Amino acid sequence: MSRIAYVNGRYVRHADAGVHIDDRGYQFADGVYEVCGIRGGKLMDEELHLARLQRSLAELRIASPMPLSALRQVLREVVRRNRVENGLVYFQVTRGVAPRDHPFPAGPVKPSLVITAKRLNMARIQQSAEKGVAVVTMPDLRWARRDIKSIALLPNILAKQAAREAGAYEAWLVDAEGYVTEGSSTNAWIVDKFGRLVTRSTGPEILSGITRTVLLETAKREGIEIVERPFTPDEAKSAREAFISASSAVIIPVVRIDDTAIGNGAPGSITLRLREAYAKVGVLS
Amino acid sequence: MSRIAYVNGRYVRHADAGVHIDDRGYQFADGVYEVCGIRGGKLMDEELHLARLQRSLAELRIASPMPLSALRQVLREVVRRNRVENGLVYFQVTRGVAPRDHPFPAGPVKPSLVITAKRLNMARIQQSAEKGVAVVTMPDLRWARRDIKSIALLPNILAKQAAREAGAYEAWLVDAEGYVTEGSSTNAWIVDKFGRLVTRSTGPEILSGITRTVLLETAKREGIEIVERPFTPDEAKSAREAFISASSAVIIPVVRIDDTAIGNGAPGSITLRLREAYAKVGVLS
Repeated sequence: MSRIAYVNGRYVRHADAGVHIDDRGYQFADGVYEVCGIRGGKLMDEELHLARLQRSLAELRIASPMPLSALRQVLREVVRRNRVENGLVYFQVTRGVAPRDHPFPAGPVKPSLVITAKRLNMARIQQSAEKGVAVVTMPDLRWARRDIKSIALLPNILAKQAAREAGAYEAWLVDAEGYVTEGSSTNAWIVDKFGRLVTRSTGPEILSGITRTVLLETAKREGIEIVERPFTPDEAKSAREAFISASSAVIIPVVRIDDTAIGNGAPGSITLRLREAYAKVGVLS
Repeated sequence: MSRIAYVNGRYVRHADAGVHIDDRGYQFADGVYEVCGIRGGKLMDEELHLARLQRSLAELRIASPMPLSALRQVLREVVRRNRVENGLVYFQVTRGVAPRDHPFPAGPVKPSLVITAKRLNMARIQQSAEKGVAVVTMPDLRWARRDIKSIALLPNILAKQAAREAGAYEAWLVDAEGYVTEGSSTNAWIVDKFGRLVTRSTGPEILSGITRTVLLETAKREGIEIVERPFTPDEAKSAREAFISASSAVIIPVVRIDDTAIGNGAPGSITLRLREAYAKVGVLS
């Protein structure tokens, strides 16, 4: 079976799926995206992702490519046509095609919409969740509006690549004041010595992760105390537990930061408890 | 006559010119570009642009899409096929097409190369050069590696759009310390009360503009004193002259910054002298 992509109104073979060279996504990174997990064929936290997409579009004043009700249908159709039971659906909206010029196009331009879906290797994610992963810290070089989920991801991929070359799974980015902002494609969390869950509060400095939002609700329901504030790499290294969150893998325990083992070097108990609790909530919402 | 673009080895009608949705330029802004002015059918400062392209590619560890000698030929062919006498040639290189994943692709991937050329309205540029333009200052929100000429231009287009909506031609971006870095797609210059040319020195904070480089040489030859250092918006507002430089329009005088007229509100004499002197040098180098 060949993969199918949705591109600007048509379902096409993934191999043939193209956009124009004058798409402002290609020349200016003038676009936004979302990634929604799929478990058991169902979209996880779909409404939260759609709401964030609307917010990102509004921040950049890009028009909606279609009504939300239609978008929900197309997302499902892409998942169905690709027969994805467990994986993710990726959707990207750019300002559209216009002759290259920095300002927004003067006339009305139809936004571009690309949607793809793919299966994830759940066994490998499960393995990472059981063993935990390493992260390395590095300076956060990104632009100032990280709350917009834009496709201007060059600093993120450079950080991720640097992490992988350092033998780590993720990079934790550190701001000019010495505090962790987030990972290159994940939110960053620690459990302090009092058993409190600590993660940076939302604002322009980080992306308001959907999994982050649902995890905070989950933690509340589980009776885990939450503190939303920045933390330093040093504090993280002496934390009881650490983990990262993302839509694809939900929670992955962090067992090493730079050269320091976290806790006893194995995934923490609160981390695993949250991961288990989330599995029940996320798919259903 | 229809426009022709060069896309990954083929000359195609511009209207049909496309790239794959999995091109890392489209999903991650994982690419770089150059814009070379064309005057009298000739590429301006071509070797400097090619050298900067090589540097940008090296910084991102993207392979060269073809040897420089071949690239020079293709650039000329695109200019020729589009019959551009006065205008610009745009060339963009991305890391290529690979399944979406943040780290660099594990295997070898062929970089994507897109080249287009277009005519510029030289009368309109001449008019701007004679009348001068307004700029507005705003915070510089961009990432920390502005020396890499990447396609992650979202902050730049937002700044340019904000400038246009404020009735200005360009935005001058101001860093956290209160100094002007550069324009959203131009370098920023002033002439101080001693008649010295002032522009920020190169480093990660600004793009090392090709026109900037040639202008510094031109000024030296003209016996104009040069000081490479940062300046504040306040200093710029009380400067004798101000201007911006870019490959497309070379020099455009700035006659207003925010609400302040510069000098006597008309293009300055040193600005115009440099513009004239450059016209002789740029095309020939």
